[in-house]
Amino acid sequence: MRVIGIDPGSRYTGFGVVEKVGQELKHVASGRINASARTLSFGARLSLIYAGLDDVIAEYLPEHSAIESIFAAKNVSSTIKLGQARGVALLVLEHRGLSPTEYSPAEVKNNVTGHGRASKASVDIMIRRLLKLPDEANISEDAADALAVALCHCQLIGFKQKLESPNRS
Amino acid sequence: MRVIGIDPGSRYTGFGVVEKVGQELKHVASGRINASARTLSFGARLSLIYAGLDDVIAEYLPEHSAIESIFAAKNVSSTIKLGQARGVALLVLEHRGLSPTEYSPAEVKNNVTGHGRASKASVDIMIRRLLKLPDEANISEDAADALAVALCHCQLIGFKQKLESPNRS
Repeated sequence: MRVIGIDPGSRYTGFGVVEKVGQELKHVASGRINASARTLSFGARLSLIYAGLDDVIAEYLPEHSAIESIFAAKNVSSTIKLGQARGVALLVLEHRGLSPTEYSPAEVKNNVTGHGRASKASVDIMIRRLLKLPDEANISEDAADALAVALCHCQLIGFKQKLESPNRS
Repeated sequence: MRVIGIDPGSRYTGFGVVEKVGQELKHVASGRINASARTLSFGARLSLIYAGLDDVIAEYLPEHSAIESIFAAKNVSSTIKLGQARGVALLVLEHRGLSPTEYSPAEVKNNVTGHGRASKASVDIMIRRLLKLPDEANISEDAADALAVALCHCQLIGFKQKLESPNRS
């Protein structure tokens, strides 16, 4: 099962693609789409996000997608910008037939680290551990957030399957 | 000159297409895209907004576009939803090569009615007067808001041209 996690942002949109085979988790790809150029119109920046995510999906062909629910950004103007970027991310997923599962930030942290209020540093450590990434692997904050939500989806899907399996012990 | 005005919303997205020939203003088309179905995922609803606006642009071929700037909705959750719908509207315009001009709600009201704090009813009356629409013409609130921003763009473009023209008296 291959899952893409997305962390939308009006400047940087993180993505993380993770593969789960049995209990094994594998890092497939991660990074961020840079739409931060101030010389571009906001529409042109949204177009970069759309094209960038579309390319990632076309290249890595995930079968599931996951995204964090948002409640607010630091102020109204940022909330609107974030909403606009998130709308475009949801649209790409819809156009690619990947209806995303939404997880709250606390669910993501809880599922990745065992603690709903874990720090960014703890999340980063657990992502590297779960995906067996070397310490020197360069994972941006946006990519880490996207990998975290993808991992959360992998864990919860696994859990659901276990609960539903007639062979559970 | 043909202008499309857009009033994005997560449930209803208004559009209004207006033609300006000389000092003459003409109503070309207006209406709203219904993406209110609660049975659909939010992604599917955004996809309806994208496809609906794209169809309108393909049919009426506007050369300019205008949209209201937003500052906030009634609460954070509505602000995010509105932002998501607006992001999709901006993306369609970008994909169609129609980089929109943004106007504040006060600018729109001021240019259509002469008063920056005009009521919805006054805006509606002035739209009908400027576009010579009969009283019985059924214009939804979303379509009226979209026509207002399109008219605002027509007036300001005309004003700019007058100022820049060497033949002004």
